[in-house]
Amino acid sequence: MAEKSVPTMKDVAREAGVSLGTVSNVINGVTVRASSRKKVEEAIERLHYEVNSYARGLKISKTGTITLIIPTLDHPFFAELAYEIEQQAYQHSRKLFLCCSNGIAEKELEYLSLASQNKTDGIIALTYSDISSKVPAHIPLVVFDRYFDDHSIPRIASDNYSGGIMAVNKLYELGCRKIAFVGFHSSFPGEAEKRFEGYQAACRQLGITPMVLHESDTVPAPEAIRKFIEKKIDPETGSTQFDGIFANTDYDACNCRDVLESHGIRVPEDVQLIGFDGTKKFYSGEYYVSTICQPLKELAKKCVDMVINESEEDLPSLTLLPVHYACGGTTKDS
Amino acid sequence: MAEKSVPTMKDVAREAGVSLGTVSNVINGVTVRASSRKKVEEAIERLHYEVNSYARGLKISKTGTITLIIPTLDHPFFAELAYEIEQQAYQHSRKLFLCCSNGIAEKELEYLSLASQNKTDGIIALTYSDISSKVPAHIPLVVFDRYFDDHSIPRIASDNYSGGIMAVNKLYELGCRKIAFVGFHSSFPGEAEKRFEGYQAACRQLGITPMVLHESDTVPAPEAIRKFIEKKIDPETGSTQFDGIFANTDYDACNCRDVLESHGIRVPEDVQLIGFDGTKKFYSGEYYVSTICQPLKELAKKCVDMVINESEEDLPSLTLLPVHYACGGTTKDS
Repeated sequence: MAEKSVPTMKDVAREAGVSLGTVSNVINGVTVRASSRKKVEEAIERLHYEVNSYARGLKISKTGTITLIIPTLDHPFFAELAYEIEQQAYQHSRKLFLCCSNGIAEKELEYLSLASQNKTDGIIALTYSDISSKVPAHIPLVVFDRYFDDHSIPRIASDNYSGGIMAVNKLYELGCRKIAFVGFHSSFPGEAEKRFEGYQAACRQLGITPMVLHESDTVPAPEAIRKFIEKKIDPETGSTQFDGIFANTDYDACNCRDVLESHGIRVPEDVQLIGFDGTKKFYSGEYYVSTICQPLKELAKKCVDMVINESEEDLPSLTLLPVHYACGGTTKDS
Repeated sequence: MAEKSVPTMKDVAREAGVSLGTVSNVINGVTVRASSRKKVEEAIERLHYEVNSYARGLKISKTGTITLIIPTLDHPFFAELAYEIEQQAYQHSRKLFLCCSNGIAEKELEYLSLASQNKTDGIIALTYSDISSKVPAHIPLVVFDRYFDDHSIPRIASDNYSGGIMAVNKLYELGCRKIAFVGFHSSFPGEAEKRFEGYQAACRQLGITPMVLHESDTVPAPEAIRKFIEKKIDPETGSTQFDGIFANTDYDACNCRDVLESHGIRVPEDVQLIGFDGTKKFYSGEYYVSTICQPLKELAKKCVDMVINESEEDLPSLTLLPVHYACGGTTKDS
């Protein structure tokens, strides 16, 4: 009778001469040594072992849900990223819990705890709160953009450093020689900081003296930008000390343009301007400003892929996706 | 021993002389006659009845989730509404499933079926697909904006008719005497259609001859708007046959402004323009155009309140919330 009983995963492990964990990994699509995979596959074949797909389903997707923690939808970048993540989750037959955290740490922690309670399969978090030390251990979590103290949490971001270099080089190529940086930094370290580092590196390389507004994001941006720009306008000639601005975000770039135009300074004739994000006007689909575009679809796809394959042990701790430049009317290539 | 046993809801009903359903309604916060409520509350007091809050929790919120079906987040109106609905759901301790349907009827039906499978407590749907006849019966569903054949489904919308009248009256008040309408209609009837009806009613009242672009939303809006406007420009003098436009959405209004300005027609000096929705620029928080604002926060609150209290039998089939006018630089009150 023993020969007639349905073979189990244990039987496969014994037959293949590997551990039960290795068999489980092969069945669940987790990466193992090629030689082990071959042994397991041959043992499955010999024993006519059939994967219990219901049990596998339970293991792979316990709840059929993914959770997205995002500050708000009140910004086109966040809204579009949330949209793309929902689309990707649906492609993987996952439903999406949406948490707009507004930066409220308690709310974020409440949602993070869903995973440790097995109420969601995985979490994608865009968070700028001080929760680094409070994240439950060993939950399926992928973090967008910011650093966490726990370096084993996989992070995904755009290649912000290259984007900073790209912006300065583009302004230089279009004739700018005095290129300012305008941006604000969060108190929580994140990948977006590297835009400024890219700016600095490109200035060094091109022999440009940096001219920088880089304040805390707790100050009101429009006011700080106005003061910074007005100080650099010659009151007699009306000319500016810079002929190009790389702004840390499209939001900052739009504010720069408003201030410049309110002083009769023409964009792009007098000052060229490049932002960051790739934000588009809702009615025409045009870019607000010339910009370094974040690859939203690809970022969303990568976030969902990684949170679903969280069980893999060899996920990279940092994944950066390439950005590209797009003309949006605030540079002379228009 | 009978006197010492824990009193049940049945005991309360007997003591109060009302039905079990009435007791349940009082406990669950559902509206009942004031006299019945008083009887029940007194009986609860006399019997020292304690609500079984665990059981109540199960009854009121089986899953702790609400589901939002929305076409996309790629438009500030949808993104902001989704954001506000998430905030309201959280206020009621509900987590939000987000379904960006892209108008795919199958996806919408899949999410609608969650409620009949008891996988979500209620559904708020913004849908422009042909699913009217396919909606499962008796599920907790609240519909935003559009009609369904089943008139027992509660609907929530802005008071679009009043908004149409308000826009025309405002243009008239600001000096316009030749007021055109520009808009597009879906093949699925919805409340937004009443903006056009409001325009027509106001024209009748003010003795204005209607001048109308009102095509199907299957034609590309920017092109149709361009053709409509260009036909009404005198090729010799450059003047227009209208001095005001009421556009069905801010999207349409932005397109109108682009066409007008590309012909050297000044907004608001030559032509005044009012849109609909209350869409704001992402970087400055200013309105794109002068507009009739939909009350987003209030709409979100009403949607969540109603889907949570879906068990009430006396929910109105249509709830309209008031709109208001806001100047956004395309009218002479700027």
